[in-house]
Amino acid sequence: MKEVVAVIRINKMNQTKEALVQAGFPAFTATKVMGRGKKALDQKLVAAIEENPEDSLDALSLVAQGPRLMPKRMVKLVVPDSAVSEVVETIIKVNQTNSPGDGKIFVLPISDVVRVRTGETGEQAIDEMMSA
Amino acid sequence: MKEVVAVIRINKMNQTKEALVQAGFPAFTATKVMGRGKKALDQKLVAAIEENPEDSLDALSLVAQGPRLMPKRMVKLVVPDSAVSEVVETIIKVNQTNSPGDGKIFVLPISDVVRVRTGETGEQAIDEMMSA
Amino acid sequence: MKEVVAVIRINKMNQTKEALVQAGFPAFTATKVMGRGKKALDQKLVAAIEENPEDSLDALSLVAQGPRLMPKRMVKLVVPDSAVSEVVETIIKVNQTNSPGDGKIFVLPISDVVRVRTGETGEQAIDEMMSA
Repeated sequence: MKEVVAVIRINKMNQTKEALVQAGFPAFTATKVMGRGKKALDQKLVAAIEENPEDSLDALSLVAQGPRLMPKRMVKLVVPDSAVSEVVETIIKVNQTNSPGDGKIFVLPISDVVRVRTGETGEQAIDEMMSA
Repeated sequence: MKEVVAVIRINKMNQTKEALVQAGFPAFTATKVMGRGKKALDQKLVAAIEENPEDSLDALSLVAQGPRLMPKRMVKLVVPDSAVSEVVETIIKVNQTNSPGDGKIFVLPISDVVRVRTGETGEQAIDEMMSA
Repeated sequence: MKEVVAVIRINKMNQTKEALVQAGFPAFTATKVMGRGKKALDQKLVAAIEENPEDSLDALSLVAQGPRLMPKRMVKLVVPDSAVSEVVETIIKVNQTNSPGDGKIFVLPISDVVRVRTGETGEQAIDEMMSA
């Protein structure tokens, strides 16, 4: 089993939910996070250096201090190993705009899952839709 | 060491905190998340199909688009391997109502823990109450 | 690859961001969490017992029920294995005040990372600044 964690744009949340349900993965959690990748920072840095070309170190420190994190959504779901690539592709298809800020997907190992209501463990505790 | 991550009902948060402290696990983080399992979606789907029995695909797409995530609490704590089953049972005991929505518990491997104040690492950095 | 998760004081967030950027790790997510370690609870417990020395069990149950979680920030970033100790030391340097509540750092294994925009995977999808 693996946990798939996607950090995506806020305005892609509804489409991502819908795509995951239609791919048979209806169970997940979503959280508000602040985040950024390297590309967004690079662009700010270039802009800062252009504004102040005589002191690139000063530009770097301006960028480093600034409130540069952007609001994002983090979606997490746990799936069997065999489903990881389908879930990743489903998320990419909906979120790929080719602009910096499209987000990242992390895949983490999971040792066990327990459904609280029934006490079931392992893949039996994963919510996949076998037939819709 | 393992990270135990429980997604539970909001109104079970206080009892869960109390049960964990009394079992000797006082250190954790809690976060607001939105989430759902498969069962809740199944029930919405059945209701949508009953309302509109002639078009189950339409019912599915209605359900898929709708704002179906429920507010939940996510509780995370890191414990030695030997304590995982006790922590899981403690959480289940407090959260099991036998209704859909009781939540899930995920167990993840942890490579290391560091206590920032002292620099201690590994199990030494885990906050267990040896004696209360 | 590893995920480094730090739970730190709110008022250390800006310095932590800045230190991570300057160490070459500009990409991360930040979340609001509630949390506590054992030490904070110990201190509350001692205070409660001092107030009510005749009944330490009652003091424990008061402490267990109370709203003791403190607002914290959780910072997450994914880095190559070779960078883990540098990132951990960077976070410790900025966050170590020697008072209880300095926080914890957790290191988790990561199976894969995908950059949504390009589809790149593995270490290629990690945002490190090679040269500033």
